[in-house]
Amino acid sequence: MMSTPAERLAALRSALAGLQVDGFLIPRSDEHLGEYVPPSGERLAWLSGFTGSAGLAIVLPDRAAIFTDGRYTTQVVAETDGALWERRHLTEAPPEAWLREHAEGLTIGYDPWLHSEAFLKRLAGVELVALSPNPLDGVWAERPAPPTAAVLPHGLDRAGQSPEAKREAAAALLRQSGEDAALLADAHSVAWLLNLRGADLAHTPVPLAFALLGADASVRMFLHAPERVPEATRAHLGNRVSIEPRGNLPRALGELAGKSVRVDMDATPAWFAATLRQAGARVVTGEDPTRLPRATKNPTEQQGAREAHRRDAVAVANFLAWFAREAPGGGLSEVSAAERLLDERRRVVGFVAESFPAISGAGENGAIVHYRATAATNRTIHAQECYLIDSGGQYPDGTTDITRTLWTGPGPAPGALRARYTAVLRGHIALATLRFPAGVAGPHLDAIARRPLWDAGLDYDHGTGHGVGSFLSVHEGPVAFSRAAKTVPIQPGMILSDEPGYYLPGHYGIRIENLLLARAAPMQPDQAKPFLEFETLTLAPYCRALLEPGLLTPAERDWVNAYQARVLAEIGPLLEAPVRAWMEQECAPL
Amino acid sequence: MMSTPAERLAALRSALAGLQVDGFLIPRSDEHLGEYVPPSGERLAWLSGFTGSAGLAIVLPDRAAIFTDGRYTTQVVAETDGALWERRHLTEAPPEAWLREHAEGLTIGYDPWLHSEAFLKRLAGVELVALSPNPLDGVWAERPAPPTAAVLPHGLDRAGQSPEAKREAAAALLRQSGEDAALLADAHSVAWLLNLRGADLAHTPVPLAFALLGADASVRMFLHAPERVPEATRAHLGNRVSIEPRGNLPRALGELAGKSVRVDMDATPAWFAATLRQAGARVVTGEDPTRLPRATKNPTEQQGAREAHRRDAVAVANFLAWFAREAPGGGLSEVSAAERLLDERRRVVGFVAESFPAISGAGENGAIVHYRATAATNRTIHAQECYLIDSGGQYPDGTTDITRTLWTGPGPAPGALRARYTAVLRGHIALATLRFPAGVAGPHLDAIARRPLWDAGLDYDHGTGHGVGSFLSVHEGPVAFSRAAKTVPIQPGMILSDEPGYYLPGHYGIRIENLLLARAAPMQPDQAKPFLEFETLTLAPYCRALLEPGLLTPAERDWVNAYQARVLAEIGPLLEAPVRAWMEQECAPL
Repeated sequence: MMSTPAERLAALRSALAGLQVDGFLIPRSDEHLGEYVPPSGERLAWLSGFTGSAGLAIVLPDRAAIFTDGRYTTQVVAETDGALWERRHLTEAPPEAWLREHAEGLTIGYDPWLHSEAFLKRLAGVELVALSPNPLDGVWAERPAPPTAAVLPHGLDRAGQSPEAKREAAAALLRQSGEDAALLADAHSVAWLLNLRGADLAHTPVPLAFALLGADASVRMFLHAPERVPEATRAHLGNRVSIEPRGNLPRALGELAGKSVRVDMDATPAWFAATLRQAGARVVTGEDPTRLPRATKNPTEQQGAREAHRRDAVAVANFLAWFAREAPGGGLSEVSAAERLLDERRRVVGFVAESFPAISGAGENGAIVHYRATAATNRTIHAQECYLIDSGGQYPDGTTDITRTLWTGPGPAPGALRARYTAVLRGHIALATLRFPAGVAGPHLDAIARRPLWDAGLDYDHGTGHGVGSFLSVHEGPVAFSRAAKTVPIQPGMILSDEPGYYLPGHYGIRIENLLLARAAPMQPDQAKPFLEFETLTLAPYCRALLEPGLLTPAERDWVNAYQARVLAEIGPLLEAPVRAWMEQECAPL
Repeated sequence: MMSTPAERLAALRSALAGLQVDGFLIPRSDEHLGEYVPPSGERLAWLSGFTGSAGLAIVLPDRAAIFTDGRYTTQVVAETDGALWERRHLTEAPPEAWLREHAEGLTIGYDPWLHSEAFLKRLAGVELVALSPNPLDGVWAERPAPPTAAVLPHGLDRAGQSPEAKREAAAALLRQSGEDAALLADAHSVAWLLNLRGADLAHTPVPLAFALLGADASVRMFLHAPERVPEATRAHLGNRVSIEPRGNLPRALGELAGKSVRVDMDATPAWFAATLRQAGARVVTGEDPTRLPRATKNPTEQQGAREAHRRDAVAVANFLAWFAREAPGGGLSEVSAAERLLDERRRVVGFVAESFPAISGAGENGAIVHYRATAATNRTIHAQECYLIDSGGQYPDGTTDITRTLWTGPGPAPGALRARYTAVLRGHIALATLRFPAGVAGPHLDAIARRPLWDAGLDYDHGTGHGVGSFLSVHEGPVAFSRAAKTVPIQPGMILSDEPGYYLPGHYGIRIENLLLARAAPMQPDQAKPFLEFETLTLAPYCRALLEPGLLTPAERDWVNAYQARVLAEIGPLLEAPVRAWMEQECAPL
């Protein structure tokens, strides 16, 4: 029989009392600090019921709180028991303030595998004690087993660069800065470095592994159940890469006494630096050496992205044509529409999984930026309203992510809505058509996409775009069109999303998203330095019913016409006749 | 008889040998680390001959180098003796690299009053020794006396806030963060805090003073020759502000044993933190507490800025009309034109000084961003060429800074030049007309002004704009439209320049600059948060002969027409008839 939330909380408190600790921190993240976690890492959801993608619980003897950000204000109330949990805003009423108020004189435990040192530093003044193993795991009776999906090679025809070459280049970075090794806790880094893929997570095709990269280009990889690495994968890795159980990690770090080890403090659980220091290693704060090369796609990956987007575009076109036919009748639902799109993608050659759970929001649900339609929230998509669908696919040659906002019809959309859709589209075009000199970074360009909305006193409370991996995470650092991002210069080969939006709470949400590939721009007269521009990867029509051509400049109208003509020319021939007919209509010149 | 550069270098080396030190660092800055220094602080110019506004010399026993940035590559070669000085690029071949190459095993002296700790940290690995007094001062026989200009009150009718209120507000910031005092080394901070002005520098009306602000809102001010503070000023300051000789500083810092003292590490000579630590004080790294309130002009300062700009605009209009009449003949020179503008400003009520040395560049000299016309470089302004003039004035109610680029005539300007002038103007307009939400900072907006140039593969190698003081420095932090600036949100009351440009080396330079005052924008439908916009303070026509109306969008053309109509309406009535007639022509609708 399943335990109740109250029983779980009581069991944890009892375990803490046995350890002579007063409180405990339970984050959403697992040992890799990534965006997604496997079922065995869903500690926060098990304890509290909250299933959002970011949050932190703190349990004290006589009170408990759960901290989430603005995306989850409604959801956390629906999913957790208010008698057990205070609900707090992660940034407006942060955990450190709550702890200072309620935990004076108390000892607070934490699992050093689940928090970065950067986070723990914010809690300066709180008496913290590292607890390993995690006491929650001890009381989580029905805990799922950790994933053991096969670990497979990501072929050179997809990766474009051998693991030997990647290891050698990353090791050269370490040698340049006089370091002996780097610790990689980000499973995406390990997968990229060794050209490995897996299925430990629902939306990101990676095995959950750690790695120690040596300055001699050797790698020790650590993962649960190493026997799941088949012989072919071992042959692919060669004899400079060892495959070891996670239990070997403490000893492996211990062998680094006297060595300089690079650790990315934002992306690594505190356990690693603590264990290294204790072993007498010198911990050097530095960026994960695979981060920048991973973000900069090579020509093979770029070509793969183009091909994956072309195939994905067929599924999207089929879905859009179906929606255009069915939606005016008013009988669809958010869940059934998202299922339909997933079914279309399942027919695409190479489709592996959705790159994230689709966001399928009708009317006022479209205004919830990270809305997820579930059986509980599912809503009918009515005639004469706005519908937003943000989705993507994982393919061996590339990762896709596209948002379209649609009008169900059958009548025309209101003028005010068309004006706002067109303002969002103008921002989207402004970024897609930008040329800029080398050295410029994402935070400098975010405003370019906002200006048409800013002119009207409107804005959106999220970044304009994020980096996208190559058959890896759909949200990949370090670049982003966001004021909050690091000022890492955009380089040819980087893939970023271009997704401005506008959300009128209680009414509708608009977001328009394509993926862009940065490339060198052709030289112009008197040009004195290299410039970059973007190639649009995503190929799907915008929504004609929401577009107000009179609000576009002539250059913007020309761009939309050229883009849609390209969509028709490249995707049209791949479609069945009725869908092609729909696309011809949708892509006709404005 | 004046000594030669070789004799000066030899004298310094001999003094260093006497101190058993191998080398010495000579920066451009003085003890306040500001942009301008008094004649007594021109150590770098005395030693090397280089008169630019930024640079560093390093003297070793058998070699010496001078480091300057890209603005001064030509000037440093002209002003220094290549037999004595290696000329190096400050960022591309930085001093720390040169020292590591040439100073291994050597002891390098520095004057702890002339470098920030932040700078000295970059030299990690070099064996540094603090030398005080400065050995260069000992061999600088003809050294001018330090300035002793009278220190006068800046009246409440100009400052808008009493020194008591400012001291109390700044002290409250210290109390909030549990600090006992703040050290202010920036003379502008002291002048702003105490509502004092002076004439120790040529272009910035401040007395060169330091201050210790207590958490109890008391202030100890330290300056050379305190007897120059007249009785009226002492009465203005009241009995919570002491006026002391600079020699009291060591003892004053010594009295802070056990106290927490805030020091702005980028803006404070290393001597202060070192002396405080030695005295047993706790040095807390933190921002100068006057920096943000100083940048945020109060309503009195805002109104003063408007009035100063209106008066300044009369001088500018007189100059522009004169130039339009005389330039086609081809007989003007860069120096005579700048002198003419200065003469016009001298006739303006309240004019105190130029806010910086005017940049007056014809043809190819206009392409040198920080060009300064001197007797040596002075060039005739020919017919049929471009002329750039960037200048400003200090008035008790405000500081001005304006750049106009002109065409001498008498024939029309080439189409390519007109296209580029118009691209620069479009960027200038894009920023002037921007609306943006609260929280956005200068680095996020710099690209807005560049886009029209970027579209053509062109750019400019300087920030788009800087903060401007109120009868204080024309270059005032912490805000700037620059990717290199800190992400300090722009707030209503801040004054920034809007000055995009384009420079074709060897041919011409274009820059167009107005000052903008940030203010709250009126609310619009569905607006969910506060927005800001800019009021343009500068009032002078753009250059009709360089403007290509066909390249403006309708909205841009409307904006130019409205701006020029405003210039004519506000400034026209203040002009003599011939100048007004010229302005009517220049401001006629496009």
